[in-house]
Amino acid sequence: MKQQAKPRPTLESFLTGVVNGDRVVLAQAITLIESHLPEDELLGAALLEKIMPHTGNSVRLGITGVPGVGKSTFIESLGHVVLKSHKKLAVLSIDPTSPIGGGSILGDKTRMETLSKQPRAFIRPSASMDTTGGVAQRTRECMLLCEAAGFDVIIVETVGVGQSEYAVKDMVDFFLLLMLAGAGDDLQGMKKGILELADAIAITKADGNNVAAARQAQAIYAQALHTTRAGASGTSPVFTTSAVSHTGIEDVWKAITGFVAEAKENKSFDRQRKRQYATWLRDQFADLLKADVQQFDEVRTAQALLESEVTSGDRSPRSAASELLTTYHRAIRSRN
Amino acid sequence: MKQQAKPRPTLESFLTGVVNGDRVVLAQAITLIESHLPEDELLGAALLEKIMPHTGNSVRLGITGVPGVGKSTFIESLGHVVLKSHKKLAVLSIDPTSPIGGGSILGDKTRMETLSKQPRAFIRPSASMDTTGGVAQRTRECMLLCEAAGFDVIIVETVGVGQSEYAVKDMVDFFLLLMLAGAGDDLQGMKKGILELADAIAITKADGNNVAAARQAQAIYAQALHTTRAGASGTSPVFTTSAVSHTGIEDVWKAITGFVAEAKENKSFDRQRKRQYATWLRDQFADLLKADVQQFDEVRTAQALLESEVTSGDRSPRSAASELLTTYHRAIRSRN
Repeated sequence: MKQQAKPRPTLESFLTGVVNGDRVVLAQAITLIESHLPEDELLGAALLEKIMPHTGNSVRLGITGVPGVGKSTFIESLGHVVLKSHKKLAVLSIDPTSPIGGGSILGDKTRMETLSKQPRAFIRPSASMDTTGGVAQRTRECMLLCEAAGFDVIIVETVGVGQSEYAVKDMVDFFLLLMLAGAGDDLQGMKKGILELADAIAITKADGNNVAAARQAQAIYAQALHTTRAGASGTSPVFTTSAVSHTGIEDVWKAITGFVAEAKENKSFDRQRKRQYATWLRDQFADLLKADVQQFDEVRTAQALLESEVTSGDRSPRSAASELLTTYHRAIRSRN
Repeated sequence: MKQQAKPRPTLESFLTGVVNGDRVVLAQAITLIESHLPEDELLGAALLEKIMPHTGNSVRLGITGVPGVGKSTFIESLGHVVLKSHKKLAVLSIDPTSPIGGGSILGDKTRMETLSKQPRAFIRPSASMDTTGGVAQRTRECMLLCEAAGFDVIIVETVGVGQSEYAVKDMVDFFLLLMLAGAGDDLQGMKKGILELADAIAITKADGNNVAAARQAQAIYAQALHTTRAGASGTSPVFTTSAVSHTGIEDVWKAITGFVAEAKENKSFDRQRKRQYATWLRDQFADLLKADVQQFDEVRTAQALLESEVTSGDRSPRSAASELLTTYHRAIRSRN
């Protein structure tokens, strides 16, 4: 029932629509990229290839924080600051825990309500649950589509509870960690390693009675960050912010643009992007290879048999894995 | 200089030596299994296949805890308890952070000093640093060798700081988490998820002035465990222990043997082992496939070229990955 009656755009119309910044076509192109239908995958791959020359010209910003930190509110505030400097902003989400939802584009309109009404803002939640890897691949490709459509700031947001922070860190130029004041020094249930990923920390909800606690948290995190990295430009990369009283948000954006300008100047920006693209290729190939193995009937059959031999203790996993590889090779040879 | 002049055992002598519980041959067999030399890999695979009928008859126990928790001391104490009930005990380590060391067998003799002097105890640290996955595969195979050599209790220990706990959980029948009292409720820098892996928790160093804090921690962790799992046999799976005053260790061992007896009775023991073996096969195959891709010159060449095209933004990672897969297929077909 999700298929629509109207004819699907051709490659040429997808390309023209995306490059001209047509939001409807952009949304359709993202849906195309996320699709697992074979004909969609072919068209999506062709589209990606065509848009490559139009990509790479945005500031890619990752934002993470545990549930309750006020991520949507913060991003909404930051979004308005970004739009003041005449930029087009796209917000993409990686949420490995979110359920599959065909209607999630509309469903998310309730979040970031004022931002989503801005004609120069584009908000897109992750459309499907999958492995973190799978979601990350698609989010990266969505990012490219948005860049081709002229969005010059792209925020990739993720819930700070699992592995997805590492995936986001690997696809952005700047990684911002949102933290609550007064929630203890245990990094609020996060892995401590996430602190090391952060280019800056923003303490949220620093308003009313919470201001003193926020300042205290600022000092603690500044110290923690200081031990894990050298502060960019000598400024402290820990900010106190409040979306309610509109404080600190401009400072965060200034720090981001300053960081990016400096990184471009000293070429670390390009080096990081190159590393990220190499990782991306490796990850994408690993996913493709895994899927390729499963496409052969004879491999799947052998796998089931070998698995039963291994689980009954008749066969070592090493020998079973080796035979499975032989079967895979044979399957490839038997095709032409 | 590490090669020795004396002739290497044949498959037959390896098999006989291991099955007869010859510790020298067992140590050599483990070195063989860990070797990446092609002729060693062939011999090692053949040996593994031969010993399979002699494996599976041990209690496999995983023990983890952050540095400083007193893991070696605890395992040494537990080891003596195990040996009292006339068992042979092997202790294997997974330490993804340990450096490569050919002499690590001797090097680790300083740890668990009294235990290592017992003729019925065998202590083997991880011989090499590698991916967690790689270390895990080899540790599993070492476990099989030890079982074939008649060791009926095998402890796999790991440092509780990273991903290796999940690898250990996947290879053992019982997973014991060591915790310090009074080090806060933040699970001492561990991911909270590790608590969910634990079949029991032992609070260490519950002696002297520390007893009250240990009892308090016991209550806190019992509550935390209660919310994540139903206590086995209705008993609380959180223990206070002291290796110095020799308290609590016997209780931990009683809980482990009780758990295993019950799990065998209700068949959950077998079901868990079957699941673990299936996972093991999948992991081993994934590793093998990764290595297989890299063995073809033409694939490596294509990979380097495609990587440079992707990093310079000329090519989408999706299309590059797809071409790399085509190249891999072609390489396989060109061999016979």
